[in-house]
Amino acid sequence: MPEPLTFYFDFSSPYSWIAAERIGDLAARYGRDVRWRAILLGPLFKESGNRPLINQPIKSDYFRRDFVRCLRLHGLEGDLPAKFPVPTAAAARGFLWLSEIGEAAAIDYALALFRAYFQDERDISDRLVVADIAAERGHDRGALLSVVEDPAWKGRLVEEVEEARRDGVFGAPFFLVDGEPFWGADRLDMVDTWLAKGGW
Amino acid sequence: MPEPLTFYFDFSSPYSWIAAERIGDLAARYGRDVRWRAILLGPLFKESGNRPLINQPIKSDYFRRDFVRCLRLHGLEGDLPAKFPVPTAAAARGFLWLSEIGEAAAIDYALALFRAYFQDERDISDRLVVADIAAERGHDRGALLSVVEDPAWKGRLVEEVEEARRDGVFGAPFFLVDGEPFWGADRLDMVDTWLAKGGW
Repeated sequence: MPEPLTFYFDFSSPYSWIAAERIGDLAARYGRDVRWRAILLGPLFKESGNRPLINQPIKSDYFRRDFVRCLRLHGLEGDLPAKFPVPTAAAARGFLWLSEIGEAAAIDYALALFRAYFQDERDISDRLVVADIAAERGHDRGALLSVVEDPAWKGRLVEEVEEARRDGVFGAPFFLVDGEPFWGADRLDMVDTWLAKGGW
Repeated sequence: MPEPLTFYFDFSSPYSWIAAERIGDLAARYGRDVRWRAILLGPLFKESGNRPLINQPIKSDYFRRDFVRCLRLHGLEGDLPAKFPVPTAAAARGFLWLSEIGEAAAIDYALALFRAYFQDERDISDRLVVADIAAERGHDRGALLSVVEDPAWKGRLVEEVEEARRDGVFGAPFFLVDGEPFWGADRLDMVDTWLAKGGW
C-alpha cells in the first residue's frame, strides 16, 4: 500500500478550501489516501515572516480576484468573507477530535467548515458556530465545546503545528507526497503529474 | 487580430525565465503575439512590501527545490546562481533598446540573458557581461554600453516600471490577457485554459 499524501491546511486559508475540495478525488485516482492535518498559520507566519495576503498592499486586490477566479474554474462558488482571516484554533481542535472518531467524519466536518466560512460567511472563529456546524453534521455539540477548551486538546494542536514546522510548512495548503513538498493549491496539478510519473 | 498578451519579467526572476521559455509557444497556439516587457522588481517590491523569496526564512529552501523541480518538468536545466538576486537595470535597458530594433532580436537577447544567468552563472548585473551577451547575439557592443549609461534610456526604464505599477504588477512573471491579470509561472497553465475558454 503506498503512503498516504499529507495535506496541511488552515480553515481560514482560501486556497486550502480549494485544495480540500480537490485532493480526495486526485489522490483516489492513484490509489492514495490523504492524511488531512489542520494547522494554524499564525505561529508559522511568525517564524517565516509571512503575512496574510490580504494585508499585503497591491497584492491583496489581485489575490481576491484570483481566488474567485480559481473557485469558478473548479465549479465552486464563494468569496473572501468580510471578516478575514480569522483565528481557527477552535475549528482545528474540533477537527483533531473528530479525526479520532473517524477520518471520514473529520473530512466531512472540514468541508462543512470551509463552505460555511467561504460560502455562507459564518464566523468559524466563534466556537459556538463551530459547535453548530459539528452538530449539523451529526456530532455531539457539548462534546465539541468541551474539546475546544480542553488543555489536552490545546496541547495536541500545538504539537500538530510543531510537526508542520518540522516538515518545512510555511503556508497552506501544503502537501507532502512521498516526502516531496508542494506549497499552494496551484501546485495540485503538479502533484498530479508527480504521482503519474512517480516523480521526475 | 486579437490583442497581444503582455508578459512582465525581471531578468533576475527564476520563474520569469521559465515563463520566457514557455510563453511564445503557448501564445502562438492561440494566434497571439506576446508583448515582452522587462521591468525591475526592486521598486515594485518596495511598494508592496514583498521581499525576494531567497530572503524569506524557511520558504527559501522550498523555493530553491521547487525552482529546480519546475525546470526539470519543462525540460530545462539550471539552478539558482550563488549571486542571487542581482540588479538588472543594465540588462533591462539593453532589452528596451533592442525592442526598438526588432521584437525577435529582443526576445532572442532576453532568452540568452536568462540562460547565461541561470545556466552558466554569468553575472548579468555587470553591464560588461550584458554587452558580451548582446555581442554574442550579433549586436553592437559599444552601442549597448552607451544605452546602458544614457539618461534617456534610464528614463525609459523608469517609465516601464511605472506602467507596470499602474497595471497592478507586484511580482514577476506577471501576465495580462485581455486585461485579466495572472501572476506567477504556475499560472501559465491557467492562462492556457483562459485562452482556450475565452475566460470563465
